[in-house]
Amino acid sequence: MRIFSYRQDDTPGVGVIADNESFVALGETAPDLPKTLKGILEQPSGLERAKAAAATKKGLKSLAGITYDPVIPDPQAIWCLALNYKLHIDETGLTTSAKYPQIFLRMPCTQVGHNRPILCPDFAISTKYEYEGELAVIIGKGGRHIPVEKALDHVAGYSCYNEGSVREYQGHNRQFGLGKNFEQSGSFGPWMMTPDEFGDPSRHRIITRVNGIERQNATTDLMVFGVPQLINYLSQGYYLRPGDVIVSGSPGSLPLHKGEKPTSKNEGGVYVEGMVQMKPGDVCEVEIDGLGTLSNPVVADAKAEYQTTLFTPR
Amino acid sequence: MRIFSYRQDDTPGVGVIADNESFVALGETAPDLPKTLKGILEQPSGLERAKAAAATKKGLKSLAGITYDPVIPDPQAIWCLALNYKLHIDETGLTTSAKYPQIFLRMPCTQVGHNRPILCPDFAISTKYEYEGELAVIIGKGGRHIPVEKALDHVAGYSCYNEGSVREYQGHNRQFGLGKNFEQSGSFGPWMMTPDEFGDPSRHRIITRVNGIERQNATTDLMVFGVPQLINYLSQGYYLRPGDVIVSGSPGSLPLHKGEKPTSKNEGGVYVEGMVQMKPGDVCEVEIDGLGTLSNPVVADAKAEYQTTLFTPR
Repeated sequence: MRIFSYRQDDTPGVGVIADNESFVALGETAPDLPKTLKGILEQPSGLERAKAAAATKKGLKSLAGITYDPVIPDPQAIWCLALNYKLHIDETGLTTSAKYPQIFLRMPCTQVGHNRPILCPDFAISTKYEYEGELAVIIGKGGRHIPVEKALDHVAGYSCYNEGSVREYQGHNRQFGLGKNFEQSGSFGPWMMTPDEFGDPSRHRIITRVNGIERQNATTDLMVFGVPQLINYLSQGYYLRPGDVIVSGSPGSLPLHKGEKPTSKNEGGVYVEGMVQMKPGDVCEVEIDGLGTLSNPVVADAKAEYQTTLFTPR
Repeated sequence: MRIFSYRQDDTPGVGVIADNESFVALGETAPDLPKTLKGILEQPSGLERAKAAAATKKGLKSLAGITYDPVIPDPQAIWCLALNYKLHIDETGLTTSAKYPQIFLRMPCTQVGHNRPILCPDFAISTKYEYEGELAVIIGKGGRHIPVEKALDHVAGYSCYNEGSVREYQGHNRQFGLGKNFEQSGSFGPWMMTPDEFGDPSRHRIITRVNGIERQNATTDLMVFGVPQLINYLSQGYYLRPGDVIVSGSPGSLPLHKGEKPTSKNEGGVYVEGMVQMKPGDVCEVEIDGLGTLSNPVVADAKAEYQTTLFTPR
């Protein structure tokens, strides 16, 4: 099952993909189910009920008329991984523990859904707004101190994540804090695919493209800490909750293509030769094989001037 | 005005302190106001309406019968400061940028309200659960790229914060991630005091006590980056929203008292001689002069064993 969060005429809903053009609106087909995907995951048999309801194909609607929200718009936590692929460790020259994963957090309001604009900061404050195509893991059943061998029982599904990063701010000090939490800088979607269809999370390929050109291409078996290890580690400190998201790390960059010139080393942040920057007008895609493609246009953020209302692109 | 979030018979509410024993329940006195403090802050004149309603002293109730929630139970973001006092930089021996603040994040579900138990991790996984008494700043009017000289116009009020930290996990890798986000490890309260009563945030004293013994005692003028600078910095990347919280950093430790023995240096994390560890049975207080005292009993977390339900102390 591919299940997702959306809005239609500003009303939020949860849908199940029926085919390339249409979906089943659970609000119509199963009005007794919770109205959010997190709410559905909080119910012990929520996903099974959603699946059964979608199988009837009542409430069939066109995907053309909706706006995608982040798969989970309101998670309690978005746990992100730094330096969880060897290539990315090597290309950045940064050090990381071999024993424990390196964890930081993103906030829900920094992410948008599929096809929604992601914001490129005003060049006056940053010229290094960069993609990171990653596998996102969505927690179903809550748990604490989850053993590695039980970890995948706690997964509701998987999605694509563009963990968009503003490198100058990320590099301002030792904790990433703000550079990983710029306004509408990341994206999460298009949908969650359940494990029965997705299979083993360590046997997939992630590809990131900017304007159709491949910039990242790696397989998830190259993670330093795999999905079961990440779930085990995080749950030592924290009760992993239904709808929580684990963004499992960026695989690193492909080399530049023939004739391409690298960015200047002087633009701030860590220098990676194969990394290109996202600019207004670009389209950035993160594809995971068997799951689908998350695509976002890059749009200029408002000018770096005092504002007292939230900037909403388009 | 001192305004706070509470529950009575599991029903959440917002109250205004009337005197040492009683408060005005805004749900009764001003039923047209939003039902959460964040909701009140989102209204342009929400705080003024709360103040006017409280002045009538209708709906007067006893503080004895309520449970304090975190001042803002559901902020979009809790921005925390690492190494924002010189003493704390010196005592840890850690380096930090002199130019940019060091920012990390906490999640709302890691914090509890005044008088609620904070959880000491099972000694099997940590013996270094430590307090950090800090000044919390609560955003009122939202804004982006807020100039330093306008920053305090965006503050709704101030509170105390115990930024409880699990040092072994904090030290596992370069990003603090999990060690700053253990389940129910921090506290936030008892109330928010508005700026008209609190005055200049750089002219206050913070004292942290464990079982009545002073462990931290410093003045807020010693912050490396003051409240206006922090608001300016964060708002460069992110639209600061009503109800957002900025936890402005730990001031560092007093020396050990006569006859006290330091912790072993071998217990993991950064070693600070004057820092003592919180243990089940302790009571930890954070007092800010003119504002009040946040007090929490320390209670043992559940044993470090596989659990599929959230542990709720008492």
